[in-house]
Amino acid sequence: MTTDPLAAYRDRFVGATSELVYFDGNSLGRPLAVTAEHLAAFVTDEWGGRLIRGWDERWFDLPLTLGDEIGRVCLGAAPGQVAVGDSTTVLLYKLMRAAVAARPGRTEIVLDRDNFPTDRYVADGVARECGLTLCWIDVDTSAGVTADQLGAAVTERTALVVLSHVAYRSAYLADGAELTRIAHDAGALVLWDLSHSGGSVPVALDEWEADLAVGCTYKYLNGGPGAPAYCYVAARHLDELTQPIQGWMGATDPFLMGPVYTPTTGIRRFLSGTPAVVGMIAVADMVELLDEVGMAAVREKSVGLTEHAIALADEVLAPLGVVVASPRASSERGGHVTLVHPAMREVVAALWKQDVIPDYRDPGGLRVGLSPLSTSYDEVDRGIAAVREVLA
Amino acid sequence: MTTDPLAAYRDRFVGATSELVYFDGNSLGRPLAVTAEHLAAFVTDEWGGRLIRGWDERWFDLPLTLGDEIGRVCLGAAPGQVAVGDSTTVLLYKLMRAAVAARPGRTEIVLDRDNFPTDRYVADGVARECGLTLCWIDVDTSAGVTADQLGAAVTERTALVVLSHVAYRSAYLADGAELTRIAHDAGALVLWDLSHSGGSVPVALDEWEADLAVGCTYKYLNGGPGAPAYCYVAARHLDELTQPIQGWMGATDPFLMGPVYTPTTGIRRFLSGTPAVVGMIAVADMVELLDEVGMAAVREKSVGLTEHAIALADEVLAPLGVVVASPRASSERGGHVTLVHPAMREVVAALWKQDVIPDYRDPGGLRVGLSPLSTSYDEVDRGIAAVREVLA
Repeated sequence: MTTDPLAAYRDRFVGATSELVYFDGNSLGRPLAVTAEHLAAFVTDEWGGRLIRGWDERWFDLPLTLGDEIGRVCLGAAPGQVAVGDSTTVLLYKLMRAAVAARPGRTEIVLDRDNFPTDRYVADGVARECGLTLCWIDVDTSAGVTADQLGAAVTERTALVVLSHVAYRSAYLADGAELTRIAHDAGALVLWDLSHSGGSVPVALDEWEADLAVGCTYKYLNGGPGAPAYCYVAARHLDELTQPIQGWMGATDPFLMGPVYTPTTGIRRFLSGTPAVVGMIAVADMVELLDEVGMAAVREKSVGLTEHAIALADEVLAPLGVVVASPRASSERGGHVTLVHPAMREVVAALWKQDVIPDYRDPGGLRVGLSPLSTSYDEVDRGIAAVREVLA
Repeated sequence: MTTDPLAAYRDRFVGATSELVYFDGNSLGRPLAVTAEHLAAFVTDEWGGRLIRGWDERWFDLPLTLGDEIGRVCLGAAPGQVAVGDSTTVLLYKLMRAAVAARPGRTEIVLDRDNFPTDRYVADGVARECGLTLCWIDVDTSAGVTADQLGAAVTERTALVVLSHVAYRSAYLADGAELTRIAHDAGALVLWDLSHSGGSVPVALDEWEADLAVGCTYKYLNGGPGAPAYCYVAARHLDELTQPIQGWMGATDPFLMGPVYTPTTGIRRFLSGTPAVVGMIAVADMVELLDEVGMAAVREKSVGLTEHAIALADEVLAPLGVVVASPRASSERGGHVTLVHPAMREVVAALWKQDVIPDYRDPGGLRVGLSPLSTSYDEVDRGIAAVREVLA
């Protein structure tokens, strides 16, 4: 029997008492129960009560104040380097454009073929419009980009390296500090996608000496479907980097509404349009909870859950032909486990019908997403048992 | 005494019984009372209850189904041409980039110096990165772009004309059909910013034969601070136009997660990242109400409110040196009225202290924003009286 010092936190989430097995918190986290109250109160009291005055009172700074909190609690980032806004895709676009402009004369963007689709698609578009070449690293889909592979890929032509901290398929956990150092040794900038680690695996952007990062808030930051993303730009780059979507919220004195766009100072220059205030309420709730628990304890439970899932898979699913397609060393694994079997697409469809909800990713992968504060060990037991029953 | 057949609709909004005078619904609309309930229910039942299944069940299509509703109720747009997502600024960027790429060899973007700052800033950025020139129309800040002015500005070099349907300062209401025709006669595309008209003034994009449009949803569509924007791309352009932010939600079969970005068909190709579902709930509520009332009745009350405000201003504020800096013909005026006086900055600050909330726009402009369904005639009376008292 596994002891779980964080077990009681599950009660804070909507659906805590439901029988449903939810293995998809790595795709869309469960809401906190307080979030329903906070959103209703936001509508009646803050939006409805303060109306336009809310901008001066709180909302104008919210992308940066919430960004600072995400940075402090989850990302290892000192204040003034994180902003919330747009989607992960739009922020990837802005930061990639900013990065390649800051490395004139360099002609390549390095990334791996198994990076998340939107990262690859954005890079492809940016490379085409800026006249750069994509330099692909081939990776094992059950692992991720290693130091050796990155070392072999970067050259004096590399402008930017785009990496995921936790790979969306395998959950491979990249070595942030080492890969950043390798890119820097070649004179390149690094852009980290933290979507599958932020709020689940501790990140140490400042310690890594990372340049740029983005992440989404609807997975382990429980912001709800399509909640705004966040970006990080290291303080040392804030004066030199500019992004191409020149909107009023990133300009010097937005309410002066002057004739010419001049990017403001600091991380605010990475904002473009009016920030999605309503979408930040839920994120703030979850960041507060993560702060209360502490990312070290969250990570400890995350490792416990994935180890438990792997042990069960070895015991009851391996005999049925299921292969664990995630790293076995917990130091190389994020918050989910991918189980591969040729019939998994059909298995996932059958599981959904019985309220066991993982997701499916080609080729043949069932992702067991384990959200540390809302997933129970019992849920893992019941979920893996259901996979066995369907497969058998 | 003005009769107001729509007076009872005011009760549907949060704060209906408050003494506050709200003249800023053209900047941030009041919330509907049902929105608080709907957002709380969304968290517990739809997000919390359906979890990731919500994407298949409703959310994946929501940017287009809500877009169709906005199009039908407010924009005069047939289905399949409107999508909701991103901010107005980001959508301006995407559509401007798409437009100039569709007019190769043409070297100019035409716009007016009094267009909303973010429109000008985005155009400036797009022009710089695409090697185009901005061709400025000088306008009277108490009016807007006329047919003669546009006719004199467009040439065979014009790739794109960027116009606001209702000017943010003066409320000048542009002639959508005629200005579109003038741009087309020169072979240019037109991008309409509908932020200050959508939900207040009927728009007829299909009838105008407009090419492109964007608009925000937090003014007269009452979506809340930073609610997602919408874009329109005329059906005839959907195959030829592509936008630069190549994200998974605009790709063919997003969940296939294939190696290469191929834009999907239809308006969906203008999406990039995961759509802001939470931010669309309030918008849907307001569009439903606008459909119930009908845009013709909404416009009728809007005209009544602005006429009433102008009559009062002439009567009690003109003697104090206040000038109406909005068109006097209701056919040339949107949903707000700008009152100019050298001391208005201080006047607005003083009014806020007594819960009378207009906004201030240089030079010397107090904007009386009149949201047809939530503003009462009594509110106009009390607000104008308060301006008089402060000025006197």
